[in-house]
Amino acid sequence: MKKYEEMIKLRREFHKYPETGWAEFYTTAKIVNFLKELKFNIKLGTSVINPAFVQGRDIKIVNKGIAFAKEQGVTDDILDLMDGYTGCVAELDTGRIGPTVALRFDIDCVNVNESNIETHKPNQENFRSIFQGLMHACGHDGHMAIGLGVARWLSDNRSQFRGKIKLLFQPAEEGVRGATAMAESGIVNDVDYFLGMHLGFIAKSGEIVINPSHFLCTTKFDFRFYGIPAHAGAAPEEGKNALAAACNTAIQMLGISRSGKGMSRINVGVIQAGEGRNVVPAYGCLQVEVRGENQGINKYMSDQVQRIAQGNAYSFDVKLETEIMGEAIDLTNDKELINVLSNVVDQYPNLQKIQNRSFGGSEDATILARKVQSHGGKAIYFIIGSDLKAGHHQSEFDFDEKQLITGLNLYTGCLLSLLKK
Amino acid sequence: MKKYEEMIKLRREFHKYPETGWAEFYTTAKIVNFLKELKFNIKLGTSVINPAFVQGRDIKIVNKGIAFAKEQGVTDDILDLMDGYTGCVAELDTGRIGPTVALRFDIDCVNVNESNIETHKPNQENFRSIFQGLMHACGHDGHMAIGLGVARWLSDNRSQFRGKIKLLFQPAEEGVRGATAMAESGIVNDVDYFLGMHLGFIAKSGEIVINPSHFLCTTKFDFRFYGIPAHAGAAPEEGKNALAAACNTAIQMLGISRSGKGMSRINVGVIQAGEGRNVVPAYGCLQVEVRGENQGINKYMSDQVQRIAQGNAYSFDVKLETEIMGEAIDLTNDKELINVLSNVVDQYPNLQKIQNRSFGGSEDATILARKVQSHGGKAIYFIIGSDLKAGHHQSEFDFDEKQLITGLNLYTGCLLSLLKK
Amino acid sequence: MKKYEEMIKLRREFHKYPETGWAEFYTTAKIVNFLKELKFNIKLGTSVINPAFVQGRDIKIVNKGIAFAKEQGVTDDILDLMDGYTGCVAELDTGRIGPTVALRFDIDCVNVNESNIETHKPNQENFRSIFQGLMHACGHDGHMAIGLGVARWLSDNRSQFRGKIKLLFQPAEEGVRGATAMAESGIVNDVDYFLGMHLGFIAKSGEIVINPSHFLCTTKFDFRFYGIPAHAGAAPEEGKNALAAACNTAIQMLGISRSGKGMSRINVGVIQAGEGRNVVPAYGCLQVEVRGENQGINKYMSDQVQRIAQGNAYSFDVKLETEIMGEAIDLTNDKELINVLSNVVDQYPNLQKIQNRSFGGSEDATILARKVQSHGGKAIYFIIGSDLKAGHHQSEFDFDEKQLITGLNLYTGCLLSLLKK
Amino acid sequence: MKKYEEMIKLRREFHKYPETGWAEFYTTAKIVNFLKELKFNIKLGTSVINPAFVQGRDIKIVNKGIAFAKEQGVTDDILDLMDGYTGCVAELDTGRIGPTVALRFDIDCVNVNESNIETHKPNQENFRSIFQGLMHACGHDGHMAIGLGVARWLSDNRSQFRGKIKLLFQPAEEGVRGATAMAESGIVNDVDYFLGMHLGFIAKSGEIVINPSHFLCTTKFDFRFYGIPAHAGAAPEEGKNALAAACNTAIQMLGISRSGKGMSRINVGVIQAGEGRNVVPAYGCLQVEVRGENQGINKYMSDQVQRIAQGNAYSFDVKLETEIMGEAIDLTNDKELINVLSNVVDQYPNLQKIQNRSFGGSEDATILARKVQSHGGKAIYFIIGSDLKAGHHQSEFDFDEKQLITGLNLYTGCLLSLLKK
Repeated sequence: MKKYEEMIKLRREFHKYPETGWAEFYTTAKIVNFLKELKFNIKLGTSVINPAFVQGRDIKIVNKGIAFAKEQGVTDDILDLMDGYTGCVAELDTGRIGPTVALRFDIDCVNVNESNIETHKPNQENFRSIFQGLMHACGHDGHMAIGLGVARWLSDNRSQFRGKIKLLFQPAEEGVRGATAMAESGIVNDVDYFLGMHLGFIAKSGEIVINPSHFLCTTKFDFRFYGIPAHAGAAPEEGKNALAAACNTAIQMLGISRSGKGMSRINVGVIQAGEGRNVVPAYGCLQVEVRGENQGINKYMSDQVQRIAQGNAYSFDVKLETEIMGEAIDLTNDKELINVLSNVVDQYPNLQKIQNRSFGGSEDATILARKVQSHGGKAIYFIIGSDLKAGHHQSEFDFDEKQLITGLNLYTGCLLSLLKK
Repeated sequence: MKKYEEMIKLRREFHKYPETGWAEFYTTAKIVNFLKELKFNIKLGTSVINPAFVQGRDIKIVNKGIAFAKEQGVTDDILDLMDGYTGCVAELDTGRIGPTVALRFDIDCVNVNESNIETHKPNQENFRSIFQGLMHACGHDGHMAIGLGVARWLSDNRSQFRGKIKLLFQPAEEGVRGATAMAESGIVNDVDYFLGMHLGFIAKSGEIVINPSHFLCTTKFDFRFYGIPAHAGAAPEEGKNALAAACNTAIQMLGISRSGKGMSRINVGVIQAGEGRNVVPAYGCLQVEVRGENQGINKYMSDQVQRIAQGNAYSFDVKLETEIMGEAIDLTNDKELINVLSNVVDQYPNLQKIQNRSFGGSEDATILARKVQSHGGKAIYFIIGSDLKAGHHQSEFDFDEKQLITGLNLYTGCLLSLLKK
Repeated sequence: MKKYEEMIKLRREFHKYPETGWAEFYTTAKIVNFLKELKFNIKLGTSVINPAFVQGRDIKIVNKGIAFAKEQGVTDDILDLMDGYTGCVAELDTGRIGPTVALRFDIDCVNVNESNIETHKPNQENFRSIFQGLMHACGHDGHMAIGLGVARWLSDNRSQFRGKIKLLFQPAEEGVRGATAMAESGIVNDVDYFLGMHLGFIAKSGEIVINPSHFLCTTKFDFRFYGIPAHAGAAPEEGKNALAAACNTAIQMLGISRSGKGMSRINVGVIQAGEGRNVVPAYGCLQVEVRGENQGINKYMSDQVQRIAQGNAYSFDVKLETEIMGEAIDLTNDKELINVLSNVVDQYPNLQKIQNRSFGGSEDATILARKVQSHGGKAIYFIIGSDLKAGHHQSEFDFDEKQLITGLNLYTGCLLSLLKK
Repeated sequence: MKKYEEMIKLRREFHKYPETGWAEFYTTAKIVNFLKELKFNIKLGTSVINPAFVQGRDIKIVNKGIAFAKEQGVTDDILDLMDGYTGCVAELDTGRIGPTVALRFDIDCVNVNESNIETHKPNQENFRSIFQGLMHACGHDGHMAIGLGVARWLSDNRSQFRGKIKLLFQPAEEGVRGATAMAESGIVNDVDYFLGMHLGFIAKSGEIVINPSHFLCTTKFDFRFYGIPAHAGAAPEEGKNALAAACNTAIQMLGISRSGKGMSRINVGVIQAGEGRNVVPAYGCLQVEVRGENQGINKYMSDQVQRIAQGNAYSFDVKLETEIMGEAIDLTNDKELINVLSNVVDQYPNLQKIQNRSFGGSEDATILARKVQSHGGKAIYFIIGSDLKAGHHQSEFDFDEKQLITGLNLYTGCLLSLLKK
């Protein structure tokens, strides 16, 4: 089965060269080159990423990604088109009247050191990450392989379809940073059906969760306080203490009232402040995330953390810089697409359909899905179960490669259902 | 010695009817009646107190004071002139060209329960406070007696003088609340020489501190936060937590940086917040005081506490009410008056002159003194030593009544020096 | 219908003389006198209240209650038996072998000023509370009336029964303060079936909620900090600041982490600290409550608040006094009793049976119920719906007196089902 | 003048290779080699540094220092003797009965990037620091040059003396980290006279401050909190939040009460806590310093910060590690040595003697001085004025090299006065 072998090969290549969010230049170039051969129309850079809505992008990491891509021989024509922004969208317009369907695949890795234990398959089969501290430990390598498998299949079967297909290769899903900028590029404005999925997580090999619930809304913030340094012994009153502002902010944030309307969360994950023991600290920053069971609660939490940071900036007379570093929302799958997927799954007797199971995490595909729903389109996000060697984001994470073919089958089945001539 | 006996009698009458700051209606009326007989020109109410600058005045306590005064037979004509504001100024204009000299006497008591121990002289001699919880435990009864003694003497000797004399009977010195409103009435705008003094404190009977140092600048604030109550179980997120605002404000205030420029102090003396255990608190208040070695440091501290309260009002989305409840500043005695006083003291061989001793507390006579100095007048504040039975503000406090005559001698000596025809 | 009229008369008498928790001396005496006439065996004082487990009892309020009872002619023999502790248990032993059934009625009022609006029935019918600030605004007056109605009926029908009946008149349900001390007296150690109920709340007249869910676990704490005062200007470093300890404790408590296991709550409802503006505060107290969806979460919250208070006592070098002021737990009604009650309700066509509805509050009957369940007994707590003029704890609260007869019918029905010869 | 030229050459060599506290291996080796040639008896490693009292030593920096020394050809015999601890003591025993005199020179640099401006003399004369981020910007290069100049002179003139001379080359003065470990090695236990000095600071070229006052007592602490991580969304209650502990500790420390006994300072200079945005933080550390006008106040502040950290460790149920990273105390110069120095200064007409000037900073030579005074020895610390190009610790700092000869003259003058045969 050639398609399957190609997907495995692709997956392992991606696995070997994991790239972190907003730095997936080499990864994007590989996808682009593959899709160009298949005659897809490729969009890159600011035509698929709106820079004004980019979240959590570190320019130093971006530059390292560009440098690596150049080392690997990625040519300037591609890099110029990317214009510093990773990800791409491949379009296939059948020329026949019909709906537009978008499939979304995320392409970034996580900041985990891959295990060097012998029994870890990437070690046995020689596709371990070449980068210290980076690893495809969440299955996005598999997602891309499925995406390219679907592209190959579409290319082979394009005459069967009407309408238009868009394959979205989204950067920076980790930290839920990339989807907003892609959604705000306008690339899904004409989409009638949006489909996304994840391997693993809450289901075993063979299980398909067609209607996962409890996508948590979340917003990630960085708060940076800028004060004025002063000698802590001689003239402490001349300082504006950014550390004090940051610490008080952190503590007040932890004290945001629970909501009677449902689950909420607050975490101040990181604080760094101060320059030296004997200097009144002039800089302090907080890495914060809030969550809510629904958008209302998440907004309540988001409003509170911003209000608290602003109040403390005033109290301590320091400057405040607030940056949204990521966001995801909740999702309700549309019945029409649940039915479509359900019928496809039923065609495979070895797959077990699970109607409803709690996802319990955050996914920024929800941002794209909501964008599509906001103009009357339909959206679905589903889980393709996979036995795992270790949990997501762990150094021995490995999924069941056989589920790549499941992914291909489900997506192509849905496309046939939605776009068959 | 009749003058002496009259002063002791007056002092004991005042002692028996102590009245707290801004409630000294009966006290003021007694002073007014005494001075009227001596043909002084009396000013009362808003002509000596500028209501816009009144600090720390509780209307319930004011009304109780008025009611007591009425019970004691104070007539409406006086109360009408007072118009709710205690204190008075008695003027004596000689009609002869010469400088204007103001002497200042404070008239309020403290919130202390007078001792009922047998050996306490007010018990033995039957002039114990008739009011539970109120006592002339700081010597202001003595100050008033001296003031009226000086008035009697002036009345007897008015033909010897030129210029103009003003006797300032200032309310609400405790909590340093009354002087600002008197200073802002304009009553000392034409004063060339300002003299004030205190009995006791830092000196024994026979000692006269002619140039006390270290008058601490201070400002007293009340901060009141108004939030929104909510059921703490059902809908805590609907509350605006005034207790949280008050507590965070208190803690941040304690953390105001020390000053490299000199001594500073911060005290959050009282906090009260919340209505019930299961209600998100909708009200919280703080009683705060700051101090500084000089006006610059006191201003730094005052600015900080206000800024912190405002920032927390913002953070917790509650309303803030800030009220200045009292203030005092520092003082540098003018050399000309130090010399005048020094020469007077030298005339009494039994008095020991002390050039310089730290006062270490706050006095709002400094506000009046600074007002006089600000237009080129001269000011002095001195200490008439007195052996004490117990410290100031203690329930067995009692000073040495013989020092009333010292007070009379020193003031009259200075007046002769400054205004002798 | 005589029984009905007697219950209304009783209810109105109780309504007129509301007594707050642990002060229900007059109320208890009335109950005792009524039950004595019916030949119940009465237990009082420390035989039904274990003083070591008494929560939230204020001795000043207790003494006022005793004084009022004496004024009303309650005799010393009853007061002596009560020995300072209110509430009573009336026992009826049929002498025939059979199970022991306990019914529980709470007897205290709430701290609310009763409305003087004309349309308020207690005003129209002349049974308004005679006490300013106290009112039976939660329906406990009705509960007692039902309890005495049941007693009358039992007395009339005792020959029909086997086993033993205990009528528990529990003090101090408000603030969930009284049940623990009654449970720890041993009075329910031999109980096989425990029944409790409430009028109103979550159901209208005619509705009977036979299996309410979501009884919130809660613990109420008072934390008192004792420091050392000092002059805030002269020697602030000599103070041990109890206000700072209390404020920091409050803020840290608000920051206790949410639980991933379910709903939790924290409220610092009241703080009072400090003696005066210029004194380092030597005393501070907090009124706190925590809640949890289940006992595990409530214990987590309780452990945290205590740990935080202790840590702050250490940090600020102040003494800490912790007192549990009340507690309630969750409850799962036993199926056997749900069935018994269900069958009784079915006998009354005008009553609508509601299987399950969220209670959403706290009730200390749960403590007694759990005690019974802990030795294998069965327990139920149900809601007798009532149309209300205003919500519970509001000044115009009034329930539908017709539901007193419903209460009587349901209890007697259950007793017949469980204890019929 | 050969001695002078040698000192300048030495100073510039030291300047070119600045090494930070506890990493001065190459520096120490240079000193050792110079002194060995002069036949001093050299003590190294744990015979002059007591490892149990070492403060603020970072093993990574130590290892880098050792590696650099090896690169520069420092031989293993010296490194073995140093045993990981820098600094040395050179002894000269005349064999003749007489007192023991110790001179102390500090040898470490500061963490400052040296200016590359053309007019900066080290750039013009080619002795700029070869290390990015390290610079002799406090004059310790000059101190060492003086120390070796004194050594040369002693070697040339040894026959003139009686008694014993110890030259202490102390590591890690910056951060006041090194003196305690040297004092606790016992190396000054037999010292009768202790002399130390600093170039620059509070005096210009030509001024000699023979009795500087106001050496501030200080203690430097690192506090490290170890909690337990947890997923901030799924199970936050399972975490023990070290960030919350650290932030609350910081804020409470800032709120330590001012002292009525004199100047105090607190600075939380650096905080770092947390591992990632979505993880309950398991680690947090604070870099803190306290200061006091005298040892009593410094102890009060030190006690408070430790108490606060401990209380918070308890509140947040996290482990606490406290490390003292440095300390210095105050100093009163002994009259005998003031007189000795005064007479020496008087021999140089171009030097201006300044009796008393506030130092206003901290110096750990005070620890060695106090050790000597504690067994009856005498101590002095003085300032050799120097015109400076920029303030201490600034990137264009440069002192007046002519003052090296002043240093030599004053030390040798004192040695002659104290130890002349």
